[in-house]
Amino acid sequence: MAISQLSPPQRFLFGPGPSQVDPRVYAAMAKPIVGHLDPYFFQINMEAREVLKRLYGTANDFTLAISATGSGGMETCIANFVEPGSKFVVFTSGYFADRMAEMGHRQGATVVRFDKAWGEAYTDAEAREFILRERPQVVGFVHAETSTGIHQRPSAICAAAREVGALVIADCVTSLGAMPIELDKNGIDIAYSCSQKGLSCPPGLSPITVSPRAMEWLKSRTSQAATWYFDLKLLAEYFDGAHRYHHTAPISMFYALREALSTIEDEGIAQRFERHRINHLAFVAAMDAMGLEMNVANAADRLWTLNTVKVPAGVDDLKVRQYLMAKYGIEIGGGFGPLAGKIFRIGLMGVLSTEPDVLFLLPALEEALRENGYAAPAGAGVAAARAMYASLVGVSV
Amino acid sequence: MAISQLSPPQRFLFGPGPSQVDPRVYAAMAKPIVGHLDPYFFQINMEAREVLKRLYGTANDFTLAISATGSGGMETCIANFVEPGSKFVVFTSGYFADRMAEMGHRQGATVVRFDKAWGEAYTDAEAREFILRERPQVVGFVHAETSTGIHQRPSAICAAAREVGALVIADCVTSLGAMPIELDKNGIDIAYSCSQKGLSCPPGLSPITVSPRAMEWLKSRTSQAATWYFDLKLLAEYFDGAHRYHHTAPISMFYALREALSTIEDEGIAQRFERHRINHLAFVAAMDAMGLEMNVANAADRLWTLNTVKVPAGVDDLKVRQYLMAKYGIEIGGGFGPLAGKIFRIGLMGVLSTEPDVLFLLPALEEALRENGYAAPAGAGVAAARAMYASLVGVSV
Repeated sequence: MAISQLSPPQRFLFGPGPSQVDPRVYAAMAKPIVGHLDPYFFQINMEAREVLKRLYGTANDFTLAISATGSGGMETCIANFVEPGSKFVVFTSGYFADRMAEMGHRQGATVVRFDKAWGEAYTDAEAREFILRERPQVVGFVHAETSTGIHQRPSAICAAAREVGALVIADCVTSLGAMPIELDKNGIDIAYSCSQKGLSCPPGLSPITVSPRAMEWLKSRTSQAATWYFDLKLLAEYFDGAHRYHHTAPISMFYALREALSTIEDEGIAQRFERHRINHLAFVAAMDAMGLEMNVANAADRLWTLNTVKVPAGVDDLKVRQYLMAKYGIEIGGGFGPLAGKIFRIGLMGVLSTEPDVLFLLPALEEALRENGYAAPAGAGVAAARAMYASLVGVSV
Repeated sequence: MAISQLSPPQRFLFGPGPSQVDPRVYAAMAKPIVGHLDPYFFQINMEAREVLKRLYGTANDFTLAISATGSGGMETCIANFVEPGSKFVVFTSGYFADRMAEMGHRQGATVVRFDKAWGEAYTDAEAREFILRERPQVVGFVHAETSTGIHQRPSAICAAAREVGALVIADCVTSLGAMPIELDKNGIDIAYSCSQKGLSCPPGLSPITVSPRAMEWLKSRTSQAATWYFDLKLLAEYFDGAHRYHHTAPISMFYALREALSTIEDEGIAQRFERHRINHLAFVAAMDAMGLEMNVANAADRLWTLNTVKVPAGVDDLKVRQYLMAKYGIEIGGGFGPLAGKIFRIGLMGVLSTEPDVLFLLPALEEALRENGYAAPAGAGVAAARAMYASLVGVSV
């Protein structure tokens, strides 16, 4: 029995993810696969790993993509570095931090949560105080919290963790490839991300990085990880050294990731970060002109990749999102958990973080809000964005 | 710094996997992605799930692809159904069965191995006797053992397991899409496979299936699985029902899998199985004519997908494989573990299980052996294969 032809609708992925894919990446996936032990595979993967190191801002040799989505990367990091019985401090002011805590719990760790309201960043002082008091073996925090739009400064967390001898795991799912992470400078030991979002590759892989210090710790770990698929000791033997068979790597996804990284190298990493910053600033200026409030009050705590905007009083956020999807094929996200119905999550990531895309999105958003009970001053968003772009002239975008 | 252009060499993947990819599948991966909560994604995934049910030979509603490779599917099944402290019997006559045992051990189960030499199937009587004596909670076996070429009959194992109230997990990585599994008829509760091999899709997803009986057991399981990424209770809420966000599914891989399944529906499932059987028979006839011995003595125990052939005395298997790769871009596999250096593993799967492909492979193999010390009668392999094809005329291939 024949099934229907695959003809996906055209979407503009302005949500929290997956993000729009670069056309070059689609072309790469259509190239013929080689075997998972073919020298060609390891060669091109090594090139990709070098770019990932630059994006993370690290010299860690053990920087590579896990054969699962970003959530699988999170599990890889937690399952390898959070031992049963260890103390795991998590800065839990958002959904993905909650999930880190949940995964730590499943590994049999004693999880100590530092709860704050979703959408609040941690100050250096309170982060330091908490870690010094709790003296955990591992600390987890979210560098770029996709559920709230918060950008958490890593330095104080990492410094305090170092003081008590704890390893630090950072969720960089929504920052890698679009914002600086400065892993080594900040002192992050372990981080994971995804192949989509800032990289403009389809979801399916999770680039992680592990410091030599953390690798040493892992080698000395005596308890066996419950996971075999995500066991980094086994993965190290596959991706490096003897290339000992572990699993059959998803070759086409590795082609895709490498091509996405190649487009990033072609653009220039610093230029790419700056492009994301500028389009974020233009978007925020537009929200302001439209009378809309950002969910993250402090500008320095905002992600450049994912903008969280408060839903105006009386507006049904679902209807706005449905309007955008039905009329324009535009996907934006809503809030969830304590922020359900309260925020829009609007991504400007990778190939969609451009001036034309922002100027395409803004009138559509204005219209969708107007049709659903909130009338922003007509054209004010676009005008404010244009003014912001003009004020930033000379900065390469 | 620009990195080199992606231009993979053309390979003919006659190894144990990954298998050659159907061109239609490459085209599908180049189509634009939609979001992981987009109704279009669930719609096309549901169509794919229906085909997977037919390939497995099951009415199980819970038949779907896990967002990881086949090894991740194995971990999904073991981590969900093999509880800490439970007794897990594994029929360990090959590498992948060994791995099931290893994963069961990591879940904290008491693993009881039924060891036999790699490459031996289990008789109905001995399988039954072992299970009735051990009375485990879970039984694991490999339907299609990629390391040895063994096809294990499931019926006696499943009947005995049912008698003692045990769930049965089957590894169908090298059978799905190319050989009958008859899951429901045989009484298998849980099975996993991969997106490559018999499906001719790139690696990256793992189609699994779970019987209603096993789902009931899972719902009543009180201990929490250590894995979050592979937690089937969470995955059930994402793929079915409320479509509650779990992870960001690798959309392009799902497009690929669905297209591969669409090509299978176009061919016809029964026809596809028969095609694999016929090409396997022709290949075996050729080996015989070339004076080569199959590793699996009993013809009924042989996989149609993966042919294991003994390396002739005095021949270095690695040199043969390197010769084929260097001269023809042909990948075949060697043995490992106790079979290292002793067998070739030659896959005839999916799009490469055709008469032209077999007749392309055989002279190359003859030449590679001759150049490395083993002279088969010139042209005997091709002649025998042709004769076998002729004798099977009238059977649709």
